[in-house]
Amino acid sequence: MRKLRKVSVIGLGLLGGSICLAIKRALAGVTTAGFSHRAGTRAKARRLNVADEVFDDIRAAVAQADLVILATPVCTFEGIFHEIAIALKSGCIVTDVGSTKLMPLRWAEKHLPKSVYYVGSHPIAGSEQRGVEFCRDDLFDKALCILTTTKTTHRQSVQTLKGFWRALGCFVKIMPPAEHDHILANVSHLPHITAAALVNASNTEELKFAGKGFMDSSRIASGPPNIWADVLLTNAKNISKGIDRLIKELAKLKKAIRSGDRKKIERLLESARTKRSELVNYKMKRKELM
Amino acid sequence: MRKLRKVSVIGLGLLGGSICLAIKRALAGVTTAGFSHRAGTRAKARRLNVADEVFDDIRAAVAQADLVILATPVCTFEGIFHEIAIALKSGCIVTDVGSTKLMPLRWAEKHLPKSVYYVGSHPIAGSEQRGVEFCRDDLFDKALCILTTTKTTHRQSVQTLKGFWRALGCFVKIMPPAEHDHILANVSHLPHITAAALVNASNTEELKFAGKGFMDSSRIASGPPNIWADVLLTNAKNISKGIDRLIKELAKLKKAIRSGDRKKIERLLESARTKRSELVNYKMKRKELM
Repeated sequence: MRKLRKVSVIGLGLLGGSICLAIKRALAGVTTAGFSHRAGTRAKARRLNVADEVFDDIRAAVAQADLVILATPVCTFEGIFHEIAIALKSGCIVTDVGSTKLMPLRWAEKHLPKSVYYVGSHPIAGSEQRGVEFCRDDLFDKALCILTTTKTTHRQSVQTLKGFWRALGCFVKIMPPAEHDHILANVSHLPHITAAALVNASNTEELKFAGKGFMDSSRIASGPPNIWADVLLTNAKNISKGIDRLIKELAKLKKAIRSGDRKKIERLLESARTKRSELVNYKMKRKELM
Repeated sequence: MRKLRKVSVIGLGLLGGSICLAIKRALAGVTTAGFSHRAGTRAKARRLNVADEVFDDIRAAVAQADLVILATPVCTFEGIFHEIAIALKSGCIVTDVGSTKLMPLRWAEKHLPKSVYYVGSHPIAGSEQRGVEFCRDDLFDKALCILTTTKTTHRQSVQTLKGFWRALGCFVKIMPPAEHDHILANVSHLPHITAAALVNASNTEELKFAGKGFMDSSRIASGPPNIWADVLLTNAKNISKGIDRLIKELAKLKKAIRSGDRKKIERLLESARTKRSELVNYKMKRKELM
């Protein structure tokens, strides 16, 4: 595993800011450089002392970095790869924390020079909140971080990046980007769409009677629309299949309810209950962030 | 408002047990009588000192009660009304805490004697946990309780029951049972079905990658299937319409995603985000249990 001396973080939102703070906590001696294109964010990041240096020039921010981490919305990655390519130190590791991984890989292959090493990262952490003011140095504690690699990914860089995320508190799992996008479509992107659809299907006056169940099941619908639009657009096929599967399950329940088929209703609810309780047990055992 | 001296609670699960404890805390001088048909539950209720008296005979449990509260699954109400009818004191108020209100009213009209007064109640409180061991004396603090009435409901009993739930910590709202069932189908029963469908649409191995978003949005799928089957079966028409509306919203999002229509995706997500944040503000202002 290579020693990192300087890490540059592009984008100082909840994730980017929290990466900087977690480095400060866990990796003594590593310098952090942060970039944001917003003056307001840069001012807040300086006030909160998030990074050692805060830049308004993206190429200056990545100069001499051993590791560059993109923490901006997914659809900005292509432009950023293109823009920073010329400023990257030879041997630098480039990663991103986007929620989809196949498109970022394609953009990296297209725009980054052969002298740097791209590996995808997806730390499954965060919340519906956004902005540097919510960042925390423990955001990644016990979070799962998926690294995405292909046959041609530089092995040593994968090991270095694995060590980096582990130092920040993550469990690390490695898989191909296509597998990542398929899985996340089902366990993350589909729930987001479902929450949004559930809110949109309800009427404002009726929502006043919502209890804790509705509030919890719709929480993620409060996430930032522009960031989520990027995720959905870069994983359209998998998500679209997921929606079809969900609609099929809803139709099954509807049929059982309409026909008064108690046995069928109980079987469907019991199957969900059992599956979820197994999942809760699995997460508890691993002491993963719930 | 009439003075209550004895309240009988039929069913000592999370709700029934919590009602007894809340009475003990808030209504000094009121005697509580609890009934459960399970020996194990009765033993636990006695050990936890949930009610002043715990009965295995339902008619003995309701004798001399000024208020009888059914806190068993909705589909047991008809049988219970029929069974207790003969044992109720004249002038007694009978209510239930079922999540649907039209069917219970019909059963009450069919089986209860003219000498007692039926009013429906629905305290929107609880959790995915079940059993007397989870009961709490503060379960109803700042919860909304909907009372359902019709033109023929005994006004004085409504006032008494309103005072009762308020004493237990609830905000009280009064509406016709059909309106209740329509609203709750959308804000409570539909989210439950959605959570179950979401879990059923996912594969066990993939679920291991679920983050906090999935866990929150699926929490209610851990609720007890038999209790929920009763709710769904007694509100089938409204729920079925809700499922149709949800499927329509999902299809809208799918179409926008498949066609790469960023503007449309952002508009749909933004509408959900805004609606939910208005809802959060409303609940915050009222200091309602979130």
